[in-house]
Amino acid sequence: MSREKSVDKRQRILDAALRVFAERGFYTARVSEVARAAGVADGTIYLYFQNKDDLLIKLFEDRMDFLIRRLNEDLAEMGGTCAERFGRLVHLHLVLSTEATDLAEFITVELRQSQKFIKEYGNPRFQEYLSIIRGIIEEGQGDGSFRPELDARTVVRAIFGALDEALLALTLAHRRGREVDVARAASDLATLLLGGIRAD
Amino acid sequence: MSREKSVDKRQRILDAALRVFAERGFYTARVSEVARAAGVADGTIYLYFQNKDDLLIKLFEDRMDFLIRRLNEDLAEMGGTCAERFGRLVHLHLVLSTEATDLAEFITVELRQSQKFIKEYGNPRFQEYLSIIRGIIEEGQGDGSFRPELDARTVVRAIFGALDEALLALTLAHRRGREVDVARAASDLATLLLGGIRAD
Repeated sequence: MSREKSVDKRQRILDAALRVFAERGFYTARVSEVARAAGVADGTIYLYFQNKDDLLIKLFEDRMDFLIRRLNEDLAEMGGTCAERFGRLVHLHLVLSTEATDLAEFITVELRQSQKFIKEYGNPRFQEYLSIIRGIIEEGQGDGSFRPELDARTVVRAIFGALDEALLALTLAHRRGREVDVARAASDLATLLLGGIRAD
Repeated sequence: MSREKSVDKRQRILDAALRVFAERGFYTARVSEVARAAGVADGTIYLYFQNKDDLLIKLFEDRMDFLIRRLNEDLAEMGGTCAERFGRLVHLHLVLSTEATDLAEFITVELRQSQKFIKEYGNPRFQEYLSIIRGIIEEGQGDGSFRPELDARTVVRAIFGALDEALLALTLAHRRGREVDVARAASDLATLLLGGIRAD
């Protein structure tokens, strides 16, 4: 098996896993269903992944790599003030609900179903995502536009929690066929959070 | 079986389920383990609950009833401004991490493992909890202390997300034996969120 073919097969399994997990739920989904959806033999999955939890974690890492790269490029390109870049980050997070619904559901629902993921996995990609938010906050604290007395770590976790819950609500609403106004939600959320961070 | 004995047995099963879910995780835990921990026969559980998902949902409702009652009593008793009551709510939420760790872990980790709970259950108790937060926000918008232009529904979801993520972080840190400063975290979080809500 050539290296290229192997990379391609691994990617196909990950893409299939995202669809199957979103459709069936992580716990109900079986590895054999992922294999079928990817068009590979059951045993092939175990050439790339140890077990279902490992598949979930690798899928998460793969998608986070993509999201983090996109976010970093976008923020670098736009320039602007810390507040403007923060607003952009909020929008890019929430827009997943309508533009990448399977992925949004994976992040907000399926991921939490793995005890292993929540409690044991160190989660470096999640830390990386948090550190992008943290970078914006600390830059703003440094240039005097954000309040310096707030503990950046607490602020960043709270911001992530707010983004995540808003994404969950929008994603489930979108799945149920309800009208979702991502731009309005992102604007309100950015206003709310920036109001708490901005120096008077 | 007298009614009193029956209520007692149901409660014993719920208490045991909380311990077993926290220890083993919702998906790994078996109904027979809950039965053993409660000191009842396996079949007895099915007199009160349809299945494991139903047990999880009823456990959630039981504990939320308790938390909502405590919160309402506490807020009614303290009086004070909307901002002060909001600060109290934040503190009461986060203090679960150290004072009711099993319950905090149940809310932030195990509950998410039920596909049924997240996607199908209407969750009236969660709505009730949100409506307490919403009541404080709308009262503040009414008396001019909070910004009237923010959509209360978005704000409330975001606040809940921030509280929930902070509770998860504190609970896991406490479980791992790390020092947890609940008062500091609550104060920072209340400052952050109030800053975003307060009228200028």
